[in-house]
Amino acid sequence: MGLPAEFSLIARHFKPLAGPGSLDLRDDAALLDPPAGRQLVLTADAMVAGVHFLPDDPPDLIGRKLLRVNLSDLAAKGAVPLSYLMTVSTPKDTPDAWFAGFAAGLAQDQATYGVTLLGGDTTSTPGPISLSLTIIGHVAPGAAVHRFGARAGDDIWVTGTIGDGALGLAVALGRLSDPTGFLLNRYRLPQPRVGLQLAGIATAGMDVSDGLVQDLGHLCRASGLAAEIEVEAVPLSDAARQAGPDWLTTCLTGGDDYELLLGVPPDRAAALQQAASRIGVAVTRVGHFHSGPPEVMLRQASGESLALTKGGWSHF
Amino acid sequence: MGLPAEFSLIARHFKPLAGPGSLDLRDDAALLDPPAGRQLVLTADAMVAGVHFLPDDPPDLIGRKLLRVNLSDLAAKGAVPLSYLMTVSTPKDTPDAWFAGFAAGLAQDQATYGVTLLGGDTTSTPGPISLSLTIIGHVAPGAAVHRFGARAGDDIWVTGTIGDGALGLAVALGRLSDPTGFLLNRYRLPQPRVGLQLAGIATAGMDVSDGLVQDLGHLCRASGLAAEIEVEAVPLSDAARQAGPDWLTTCLTGGDDYELLLGVPPDRAAALQQAASRIGVAVTRVGHFHSGPPEVMLRQASGESLALTKGGWSHF
Repeated sequence: MGLPAEFSLIARHFKPLAGPGSLDLRDDAALLDPPAGRQLVLTADAMVAGVHFLPDDPPDLIGRKLLRVNLSDLAAKGAVPLSYLMTVSTPKDTPDAWFAGFAAGLAQDQATYGVTLLGGDTTSTPGPISLSLTIIGHVAPGAAVHRFGARAGDDIWVTGTIGDGALGLAVALGRLSDPTGFLLNRYRLPQPRVGLQLAGIATAGMDVSDGLVQDLGHLCRASGLAAEIEVEAVPLSDAARQAGPDWLTTCLTGGDDYELLLGVPPDRAAALQQAASRIGVAVTRVGHFHSGPPEVMLRQASGESLALTKGGWSHF
Repeated sequence: MGLPAEFSLIARHFKPLAGPGSLDLRDDAALLDPPAGRQLVLTADAMVAGVHFLPDDPPDLIGRKLLRVNLSDLAAKGAVPLSYLMTVSTPKDTPDAWFAGFAAGLAQDQATYGVTLLGGDTTSTPGPISLSLTIIGHVAPGAAVHRFGARAGDDIWVTGTIGDGALGLAVALGRLSDPTGFLLNRYRLPQPRVGLQLAGIATAGMDVSDGLVQDLGHLCRASGLAAEIEVEAVPLSDAARQAGPDWLTTCLTGGDDYELLLGVPPDRAAALQQAASRIGVAVTRVGHFHSGPPEVMLRQASGESLALTKGGWSHF
């Protein structure tokens, strides 16, 4: 008896991604022996065509982004990635080449980040491609960095540059030019800061996925603090600077950065910089936390605060 | 500063479902301390409106079915459920009452099955409601039951009754009458056989989600055996019998049963029956495995085999 097409598709494209405990994706469930003496860290993100990526984005980049947005959440907690489960719902007319490209992108990033596929599900959908990925990592017990935990006087640091993702989306939508392709690539292919040592350095942390201002608001609420951003200190890429000052608000409030946003006591600045240099990423101090009701103030060098009409991205 | 609507929705409807390690769903990732000395068992299933449920199905039943189809996979491995992550993608005009009903259904079944929500993601979608759930359970190391492992001479057993789910879908589509509502309820609300002791009893097992014949084919391929079903032995509900013989093929090949399909050596039949009685579920011997190339033969009491044109459900 032959295998139905669904299983043939899994065997062709997803089985090569499967790692230890996956039972070659041929059972109803996977097995995981938790690393001894470690605490597991788990997170799940969904991505939908037309919302989180564009339907005609290259499928390998869609696969890589799906994995990377989840890796970014683990990185923000200081966790070591281990493996993942994934569900893939696609229209019936999705060509085989789409799956091949999607899986090739995953394979590439699995090698980069040292994770393997543990299990999942493929289904059809009458709607747009809908993807969901649950990733599992681990930390020393109690060592995970949280959104809460920042203290008044802690500095606020970010990795990399801020705003490229939102500008890249504007490029993809034809609203902004991008001669080098840098911004579009930043939108399509986040760089999760996996491996950045946070334990003993950051008092609080998260990744910037919904915009710097909104996400810093989360840290403020969770930690019961106010935050002040020094606008001119926010690291912008050359491409973002070339977009001009009209795009500054987009950089500060747009989503899809997937850089880390951290609270770090001043006396640990050097430790953070050393940790960052070990993984080859820049870190920049952009402000500080202080006592007060949770809010984010954007202070300009002129001394005036920058007012925003839109705080960040919400799906509802 | 106020919370965006997305976070308010999570706080209202999903935070009450959140358990230990979830950090009240207010962080980027959840924590899980693996039960000492146990092996984790993980599985993920997606459900899409118009494919796995009907768009106007009651939202509490959609939530319960989403949880139960995953619980069923754990049950088929003999695993104890622990917690789950979930992603929920909904159209922007989805009313708040839908989320309230969906969460109420989950809450009800969380209490029944002893699981809690660990984390997840909510997003919008321009398409139908798309749900994905990853569930985590645990077993004694090496005790999980797999699709492989059946041996020639093992009997084939099923829990409950077969075919009600597929007939219930026919009812929902207006193709079959259902005076008591039994079949429709069986389609909408699977009964995962959580807690059925399989270790030391079943040599192989899975849940019947894509149809008895197709799923038995999986056990055959995984175990390298042929199977013979005694058609008249397949347990049908009174409602399925009343549908008449024209629906027999649907019962044998339809999906959505979520009963367990097990390989059990003849000398463990009593142990299986005792284990089943402890959770109040019927078990029925429906055939046996024998040496030969992987195939499923449907033997009738007349001695003739029943030929099928459709082996089961595939999404592609």
